[in-house]
Amino acid sequence: MLRRVARHLAPTSCHLNPRVVEAEYAVRGLIPSRADEIKADLAAGRGAYPFDSLVYCNIGNPQSLGQMPLTFHRQVMALVDAPFMLEDAEIVARLPADAVARARGYLAAMGTGTGAYTESFGYSFARAAVAAYINEQDRGVGPAATVENICLTDGASMGVKVFLQLLVGGASDAVMIPMPQYPLYSAQIALLGGVKAPYYLCETEGWGMPTSGLAAAYERCVAESGATPRVLVCINPGNPTGNVLERCVMEDAVRFCHERGMLLLADEVYQENVYDPLRQFVSFREVVLGMPAPYCTETMLVSLHSTSKGVIGECGRRGGYFCMTNLPRAMREQVVKLCSINLCANVNGQVMTALMCSPPREGDVSYALYRREYDGIFSDLKERAALLARELGAVRGLSCQPVEGAMYAFPRITLPAGYGVRNEELNAKEGRQLAVDTRWALELLESSGVVVVPGSGFGQEPGTLHFRTTILPPLAQMERVLRAIREFQNGIFERHA
Amino acid sequence: MLRRVARHLAPTSCHLNPRVVEAEYAVRGLIPSRADEIKADLAAGRGAYPFDSLVYCNIGNPQSLGQMPLTFHRQVMALVDAPFMLEDAEIVARLPADAVARARGYLAAMGTGTGAYTESFGYSFARAAVAAYINEQDRGVGPAATVENICLTDGASMGVKVFLQLLVGGASDAVMIPMPQYPLYSAQIALLGGVKAPYYLCETEGWGMPTSGLAAAYERCVAESGATPRVLVCINPGNPTGNVLERCVMEDAVRFCHERGMLLLADEVYQENVYDPLRQFVSFREVVLGMPAPYCTETMLVSLHSTSKGVIGECGRRGGYFCMTNLPRAMREQVVKLCSINLCANVNGQVMTALMCSPPREGDVSYALYRREYDGIFSDLKERAALLARELGAVRGLSCQPVEGAMYAFPRITLPAGYGVRNEELNAKEGRQLAVDTRWALELLESSGVVVVPGSGFGQEPGTLHFRTTILPPLAQMERVLRAIREFQNGIFERHA
Repeated sequence: MLRRVARHLAPTSCHLNPRVVEAEYAVRGLIPSRADEIKADLAAGRGAYPFDSLVYCNIGNPQSLGQMPLTFHRQVMALVDAPFMLEDAEIVARLPADAVARARGYLAAMGTGTGAYTESFGYSFARAAVAAYINEQDRGVGPAATVENICLTDGASMGVKVFLQLLVGGASDAVMIPMPQYPLYSAQIALLGGVKAPYYLCETEGWGMPTSGLAAAYERCVAESGATPRVLVCINPGNPTGNVLERCVMEDAVRFCHERGMLLLADEVYQENVYDPLRQFVSFREVVLGMPAPYCTETMLVSLHSTSKGVIGECGRRGGYFCMTNLPRAMREQVVKLCSINLCANVNGQVMTALMCSPPREGDVSYALYRREYDGIFSDLKERAALLARELGAVRGLSCQPVEGAMYAFPRITLPAGYGVRNEELNAKEGRQLAVDTRWALELLESSGVVVVPGSGFGQEPGTLHFRTTILPPLAQMERVLRAIREFQNGIFERHA
Repeated sequence: MLRRVARHLAPTSCHLNPRVVEAEYAVRGLIPSRADEIKADLAAGRGAYPFDSLVYCNIGNPQSLGQMPLTFHRQVMALVDAPFMLEDAEIVARLPADAVARARGYLAAMGTGTGAYTESFGYSFARAAVAAYINEQDRGVGPAATVENICLTDGASMGVKVFLQLLVGGASDAVMIPMPQYPLYSAQIALLGGVKAPYYLCETEGWGMPTSGLAAAYERCVAESGATPRVLVCINPGNPTGNVLERCVMEDAVRFCHERGMLLLADEVYQENVYDPLRQFVSFREVVLGMPAPYCTETMLVSLHSTSKGVIGECGRRGGYFCMTNLPRAMREQVVKLCSINLCANVNGQVMTALMCSPPREGDVSYALYRREYDGIFSDLKERAALLARELGAVRGLSCQPVEGAMYAFPRITLPAGYGVRNEELNAKEGRQLAVDTRWALELLESSGVVVVPGSGFGQEPGTLHFRTTILPPLAQMERVLRAIREFQNGIFERHA
């Protein structure tokens, strides 16, 4: 029998799913890993670095860079987790009446409190808050969103996973993703063994979405891989590009999906992060429902949102939701089952999602503080978005499109030819295959402590180089980031020009 | 071009991943769905049911059935989410000093608070608390667990998913699971396109794990499917069976995995739930590390735990962890990447996990209250475990093994032949294919409002029938459950005998 056993052992001692091995996730990949090593060195007094701290610009994690949470939201969150505080008149007297009332209302609606599993789609009271938010945002176009179509999730990532898993069974199924894209998409497609069908955003037009190229991208995928695209992913506002889509472009995308029976997966987690006064966020749901039949009644749409971005910036909560529009019954049933296997989203995330969708209103005790906090955070983000794009664009060898929205700049890097040659030499010496922009980000990190993500982690037109940096560091740190990048680029041009 | 597009459209208008369609999850399947419909009917005053409320015994969700949260844990949780309360001397004065100090300590360790993404494996302070807990539990056997080997997760489910995804790439990879099993395993294997290799627990020996049958189960899998088993899943204490494994059995399982280069996935979420005074929970980590080389140095082990069960019962938090022992570096690197793609576990779950692993100690201000709450919950669980097994075993047509641990009874149902005949007639009439025990659970629900899960959802020896019910309802409800089952069974025997 031992012989038989041996025959079935994997050839190496460590068998691994090849799809997992193939998946990549640059936002927490090589550069951030090296940053964590350096951070540990600095903490332990090891190594000799020309800086004594790091600036993490690799990930949209606002509160890790000093952004404060919204007070009302945290008051309610604390009270629903500690209902005994609501029984203590002296504690209640120290907190605003509307936060206390909100917490009591949520607890009554939950019945079972924050320590129990909820329905698979999440507590109804929280889904009702989401539905009301959506209906207000979409200005009453089309049939109202209802709790049956809304599912609370652990961040928006869970929604992405559910729908990619639902529609991608293997190498015969493709997903159309923007290039550059948020690498969660490419990673999940790799994990499912599906095919990436990229459509390129147009950098010279502010990273706009050229819908005229969608059909060609579809056909190219079919011709090259034999796979059928099942999903069109639109990230609006764009990550990493900061582009905000216009309604006419979105209508093109809707028609494209409808004609091909594709699901439109609308990643709208940056919907509150629009800084350009000439741009306005319009949801894909509003666009779909505002179009004539059959588009408004048949286009399959899933809209994603999250508590991690916007102004609330509650990444640690892993809250979010998806809203389904025009999904066939058979598909909805499978969605319910997949969510059931996950049991439910964490309840603190559910509560934070409800709060995000129903903040204090004018006339409420907490409104003035909420308004002040919200406006302060928003104007900081807006100021830094403009500053970053302007200053990066002025650096030698960099160009940067306007940051209309989201939380990132994605500048293009032009380097002297000698830098690429040197990278090849170093790769040969080190026995690895770093892309030129990965080398660039690594050397920026090691010389300055600034952590950015190379463009190759998001996808870019072949032959171009980029990096992504967040707009999140406070102004003083932002100046350090800009100075570091400026000096780094100048140094490269001096050495290689 | 349109012709080409049409050619690539799915044959039906709703293309779905067949692996998703195939997956099943009975704990939230047909019976609980029907229960939710009835609940909505009752709330709306619709329908005519011979009861006015439901008792949910389908899922291990203690706080939904009135179990109270541990006060200290909730105090700390509230304070870390609302650090401004720590600045308010009057609020601080109303709370125990150790909860205040703990919250301050956690916040200082976090640096960035509960609103930020953490490292992919979770905050170090929380992982350190887990490591200390593990090292104490395992009585210092072998090298100490360290933070590098511990990852905080959204419930234990996430750990299951990570390791099955890592090792199951498709139809050539199998997972050995106990029968009966917790259906998360079968569902995840189906989603990954892998092969289930069941090994049967022995009902007449209190649902013991007959390790002598493991090799035959392995060989049967290889012979029948051609797939190689990569993982052995052990659930200890057992879900749904309540069995607590003995060390000698565990050692057999370790040797079995080591010989075949398989990963041992130890689902130990019920480790605190051992009621039988003659049984003691021993972790697989302690067993592995206590064995001679090469077992202690080479057996690949992943141990799972959760905040959802035990005495803490914080299901809504979706907290948990996995601990890796003897995993090769190549495997660990992929684990890190998979966790990076997930960003991080929710921070409230991380905090609750830290609290579960480091509750108040003797001498702390909160110790007396904690002890009283803990002991009260535990003795309630213990009392109901004994009561349920005894009373169910006395019902006509039922037999029930002792509930040594976990939170469930899994009684065997014997029915008059006429019941099965009638099920077939009803299935033909209704155009569906309910298993006999599903029909039984459905009729129990519709006649009494008691929600249990049929044994077919967990897997059982062909020809046998079972159901799973939790030990969680408070005594008054438990009496209603027992009465309902007794009358239901008596009715069946009267009608069909």
